[in-house]
Amino acid sequence: MTDSPLARALLLVVDLQQPFLAAMPAADALVRRASLAIAAARRLGLPVAFTEQVPTKLGPTRPELIALAGEKPTVFAKDAFSALDSAELQEFLEVQNIEHVLLVGIETPICIYQTALDLLGSERQVTLLTDALGGRRPDDCAVALAYLAHLGGHALPTETVFYSVLRTTKHPFFRDYTKRVKQYA
Amino acid sequence: MTDSPLARALLLVVDLQQPFLAAMPAADALVRRASLAIAAARRLGLPVAFTEQVPTKLGPTRPELIALAGEKPTVFAKDAFSALDSAELQEFLEVQNIEHVLLVGIETPICIYQTALDLLGSERQVTLLTDALGGRRPDDCAVALAYLAHLGGHALPTETVFYSVLRTTKHPFFRDYTKRVKQYA
Amino acid sequence: MTDSPLARALLLVVDLQQPFLAAMPAADALVRRASLAIAAARRLGLPVAFTEQVPTKLGPTRPELIALAGEKPTVFAKDAFSALDSAELQEFLEVQNIEHVLLVGIETPICIYQTALDLLGSERQVTLLTDALGGRRPDDCAVALAYLAHLGGHALPTETVFYSVLRTTKHPFFRDYTKRVKQYA
Amino acid sequence: MTDSPLARALLLVVDLQQPFLAAMPAADALVRRASLAIAAARRLGLPVAFTEQVPTKLGPTRPELIALAGEKPTVFAKDAFSALDSAELQEFLEVQNIEHVLLVGIETPICIYQTALDLLGSERQVTLLTDALGGRRPDDCAVALAYLAHLGGHALPTETVFYSVLRTTKHPFFRDYTKRVKQYA
Repeated sequence: MTDSPLARALLLVVDLQQPFLAAMPAADALVRRASLAIAAARRLGLPVAFTEQVPTKLGPTRPELIALAGEKPTVFAKDAFSALDSAELQEFLEVQNIEHVLLVGIETPICIYQTALDLLGSERQVTLLTDALGGRRPDDCAVALAYLAHLGGHALPTETVFYSVLRTTKHPFFRDYTKRVKQYA
Repeated sequence: MTDSPLARALLLVVDLQQPFLAAMPAADALVRRASLAIAAARRLGLPVAFTEQVPTKLGPTRPELIALAGEKPTVFAKDAFSALDSAELQEFLEVQNIEHVLLVGIETPICIYQTALDLLGSERQVTLLTDALGGRRPDDCAVALAYLAHLGGHALPTETVFYSVLRTTKHPFFRDYTKRVKQYA
Repeated sequence: MTDSPLARALLLVVDLQQPFLAAMPAADALVRRASLAIAAARRLGLPVAFTEQVPTKLGPTRPELIALAGEKPTVFAKDAFSALDSAELQEFLEVQNIEHVLLVGIETPICIYQTALDLLGSERQVTLLTDALGGRRPDDCAVALAYLAHLGGHALPTETVFYSVLRTTKHPFFRDYTKRVKQYA
Repeated sequence: MTDSPLARALLLVVDLQQPFLAAMPAADALVRRASLAIAAARRLGLPVAFTEQVPTKLGPTRPELIALAGEKPTVFAKDAFSALDSAELQEFLEVQNIEHVLLVGIETPICIYQTALDLLGSERQVTLLTDALGGRRPDDCAVALAYLAHLGGHALPTETVFYSVLRTTKHPFFRDYTKRVKQYA
């Protein structure tokens, strides 16, 4: 990924656990869009990590998402709303020298919001993959997203970000990516 | 509340009186969201105050809201649109050393707008709790809110603000807060 | 109007002629909101002027609007899209020492847009009374309005602006204004 | 076009090929708005160029659009998403001394996005003709457009831009333009 706009980037999949998904509208679409982001990130060599909110109680990330992330998925348990509260994730970001985090998951006004603020505070870039973010209250999601964009977060669709990495139909991943775009539409 | 993002903050509940509520769409939802804000503020030690527009004529704040604010609720009568027109409220802000006001209530394009402008003019921070604000004309509310955000007001959902204070599921108020979130959904 | 936020301001009513109104959706609501703006401006001592696009061909401003503006309404004919193209209006702005123009009328993406740009270019303030502006294509109106706000125009509802001038229910015009607000809702 | 706001400007029509149009909602409206932009640009002396994505496979631009561009339409084939990937288009921009590109076509979050970024990176002005842009996923289009506007792109309706060039009903093209506006409404 050197010289790519996503060099030193991580895709962070936040709290896509069944109890949260069950409480929100359009959960199926959100899972499809998160699937697209994970599949594209993996194929383009971008590291992928997951957070899980109190997984001992709320259970793991939806299995079909974890399955897309390869054999040894990186998963961080947390009990705070910000993912940066996990000392293991903090260490991971530093060891991997991550300078840019792409966020997908739930909920935009709570865990995504606090995670994004902490990442911006740590001088990292934050991209909010708008179609792969959600929450119980869509209006609240829109308000929180606008606020994060105002603070310097990049609010962009998943396809926009990954087509920008591909740049051309000649990219070796282009055909496969196009298939994924249709599969997860 | 020291070290909290809401240290030196006040929740100001503006003009939630029945005649105004009766004239607007979605009044019930607004009262529920204001209830959430008041309940959360109280439990987290944040002072709460109310304004009432010409209460001798228009009556008091909706009783279920006042009831959430404890035994001696702080209420300021006013006949101007800006809450800062009340000398008692001005004094309260100074004596309590309030540097940040969270606004809920009605109407966004009139009393909320003028109050927010006066607060910004007094070098205080203003947070507009978007889901707990309203008015007769929803399009006008959205326009006024966008203008206030442009001037430096923080437009954020109620849940975003209070989950940011809690920060973690280990916070002593977390369980109770979650119950409130469901109760006032 | 000295010391008022609208000192040195003019309400400019742009091209509210029947052929344009007939081509747009929600024309009745637009005429009601323009009526509110004109009535409030007049009562508060704010000068009001009208522009008419090629009136020899397209006819005059809707009579009920002109009627609200007093006995000798100020009307400028034009054949350009920008109102500033009228040398008479230019002179009027200079002689009356107008530093701030409140715009209502049609169409936001054409005549309002070009007029606002010319006013901003002449170092005057521009307020766009959002509920009293319109056009054939509502999406185009929203895009043009956002662009003008980005350039420094104040996009605000009519009620927001005039309630800001009144400031209090004790203002001598308050009762009458409230009646107008209901009449033109 | 000297002294015009569109001196040194080009209208670039991106990838309006049938397979892409077939996949998106409201394709007919998009073709009509692109037709208006092409017809107006031609009549006002503004150069018009087309890009086609892998035309050997996906076919040419919709014929009715090409037909509006005169006898020898300028068409650039590309296989990258950004139009600037075409060395021929790059050369065209330099030889014609183009400093401002008006973009219409599809898809806003992919080819339009990457083209706009590259144009802004080359110190050229970019205007996004909002009503003549589109894509499969309207929400993604809105997000990408907001991001480009934030980076300095001018997001404006087609009519706004061309009425700004005409400036007055006395312009020799005014009558004809008005006809086009109705034809492509």
